[in-house]
Amino acid sequence: MKKFQVVGIGNAMVDVLASCDDAFLAENGVEKGIMQLTDMARGVELYGKIGPAKEISGGSAANTIAGIAHLGGRAAYVGKVKDDQLGAIFAHDLRAQGVSYETAMAGPEADGETGRCIVLVTPDGERSMNTYLGVTEFLAPSDIDEARMAEAEWIYLEGYRFDGPDSHAAFAKAIAACKGAGGKVSLTLSDPFCVSRHREAFRALIRDHADLLFCNRAEMLSMYETEDFDAALAKAASEVAMVACTDSENGAHILTGGQRWHVPATKVKVVDATGAGDLFAGAFLWALCEGMSPEDCGRAGCIAAGEVISHIGARAETDLTALFKRHGLG
Amino acid sequence: MKKFQVVGIGNAMVDVLASCDDAFLAENGVEKGIMQLTDMARGVELYGKIGPAKEISGGSAANTIAGIAHLGGRAAYVGKVKDDQLGAIFAHDLRAQGVSYETAMAGPEADGETGRCIVLVTPDGERSMNTYLGVTEFLAPSDIDEARMAEAEWIYLEGYRFDGPDSHAAFAKAIAACKGAGGKVSLTLSDPFCVSRHREAFRALIRDHADLLFCNRAEMLSMYETEDFDAALAKAASEVAMVACTDSENGAHILTGGQRWHVPATKVKVVDATGAGDLFAGAFLWALCEGMSPEDCGRAGCIAAGEVISHIGARAETDLTALFKRHGLG
Repeated sequence: MKKFQVVGIGNAMVDVLASCDDAFLAENGVEKGIMQLTDMARGVELYGKIGPAKEISGGSAANTIAGIAHLGGRAAYVGKVKDDQLGAIFAHDLRAQGVSYETAMAGPEADGETGRCIVLVTPDGERSMNTYLGVTEFLAPSDIDEARMAEAEWIYLEGYRFDGPDSHAAFAKAIAACKGAGGKVSLTLSDPFCVSRHREAFRALIRDHADLLFCNRAEMLSMYETEDFDAALAKAASEVAMVACTDSENGAHILTGGQRWHVPATKVKVVDATGAGDLFAGAFLWALCEGMSPEDCGRAGCIAAGEVISHIGARAETDLTALFKRHGLG
Repeated sequence: MKKFQVVGIGNAMVDVLASCDDAFLAENGVEKGIMQLTDMARGVELYGKIGPAKEISGGSAANTIAGIAHLGGRAAYVGKVKDDQLGAIFAHDLRAQGVSYETAMAGPEADGETGRCIVLVTPDGERSMNTYLGVTEFLAPSDIDEARMAEAEWIYLEGYRFDGPDSHAAFAKAIAACKGAGGKVSLTLSDPFCVSRHREAFRALIRDHADLLFCNRAEMLSMYETEDFDAALAKAASEVAMVACTDSENGAHILTGGQRWHVPATKVKVVDATGAGDLFAGAFLWALCEGMSPEDCGRAGCIAAGEVISHIGARAETDLTALFKRHGLG
């Protein structure tokens, strides 16, 4: 048995969650429903305009990994924070969830602070993310411990982390170490605009290394530059052994071994959509490591996503294991 | 018309909110339901043991003042943070709520960081607070702007802030400036153990300067060292022009001008009791400044307290003005 079921690599962020209306987004040039990168100055400007906020540890892959640990899975995370108060909060919350997290903090000499994401939640529960990457952008090959990657059944790579100078090389190092020890590689496309920025790199990674691809409908369409969802799914399934594609209120589609399943979404009142895809992937990976069927992995993913969108914040707050049992899973 | 309806002075804190069970409190020597002071080392130790947390701006008087601003009242706050990330969060959230907040931040040379309060919320919704004061302890007379105090219809003094070397003098300066300009003084006793620590100072302040006393049942009993609640209420009413004493699920008692009213509590499911007394005082003071009757001030207080205990965090999240209107207030 490997020490870790899943080791995630991604942008280490603290979320700054605030409510606003659609007019605020328009007035301040915030694109609704997606992740947009900001520099520190834009982040400070926007922060000065939003209402009172809550700070909760976030980061897409970190949310996924926290979800796996929450479920009792053996999970580790790699992502860079600074040795500042927000960095301490990020590290605490991961470790307190039972995640092994050993990435060296950037010191006081590093340019920037711990990354943060201003998440503006509109009354419809949709979230619009404004990300100041800070030091998390500097994740480099030296942050990848090859021994740790060799101890992973799966590594989970966050598409967002392709927005960084040294991280492609970091991912390559992680993939080689993991695969060399018999581990498998999963990837999330993260965001349709992230796909636009890195389509070729993602495509190569999918074809050459990935064993499991996570994405949502918009990312899938952007990836294969088509409006034909079924064709895109089929194309993806021809390139990677397993595809798990979420489709918001329509649930998720799972494709593997020439088969395809549709899993319905869990019906809940959407309070804050932040983390839906992250928790879907976390529960899916956990269920897969526990030996569940592809369809049950998808069901676990949809149930976990339903939990996280029913409250503010991108990490599970109620006992997912108990929730799964009530749904006859696990 | 004075520039401010209420200027609050208190401990500027960021709350670190986490869930735990009663066994965790017992194992870690945390006294349930009260505020206990910790040093930095104990704070770090406890933080290392709690689960994932959320950071939300807090501080008792700051919650009260934020509530007044939320209601559209003219409010200002005085309390000390450091020029660090948590200090920036605290300042942002107050100003974003419309509060005038101009207290100079402690610089890098100051001993300690921005104060924080580890709030452990048990399944019954009760909160047990572990406060590392940090630089907020150093609030001194030099932080009191006499012109600002003279611009206040009311000042609101937080009992907790009596736990500090220079703050008694700061309060004395604030009281003199406020009263000298025709303003009035309100005081909250904060916590029964805080009353034990400062009974004589509180007693003198009540007798000599206060126009309005806020407290809860336990604080009232501790203040007058009796088990006879009605006798304590009567005693308090003989010493100060108005008394507003909360009594948890029994609501609140208002005493002034020889009369006494009982106002029932708003029935809600208690998720997190943090901030109940703070928001009671905020809504009460706002209603008083708006010219409402003592009974309606009490009703406003109970409705606001009901809102804040129905969710995580000690500041109002739903529109209190609309809530008051639905209850026929204002």
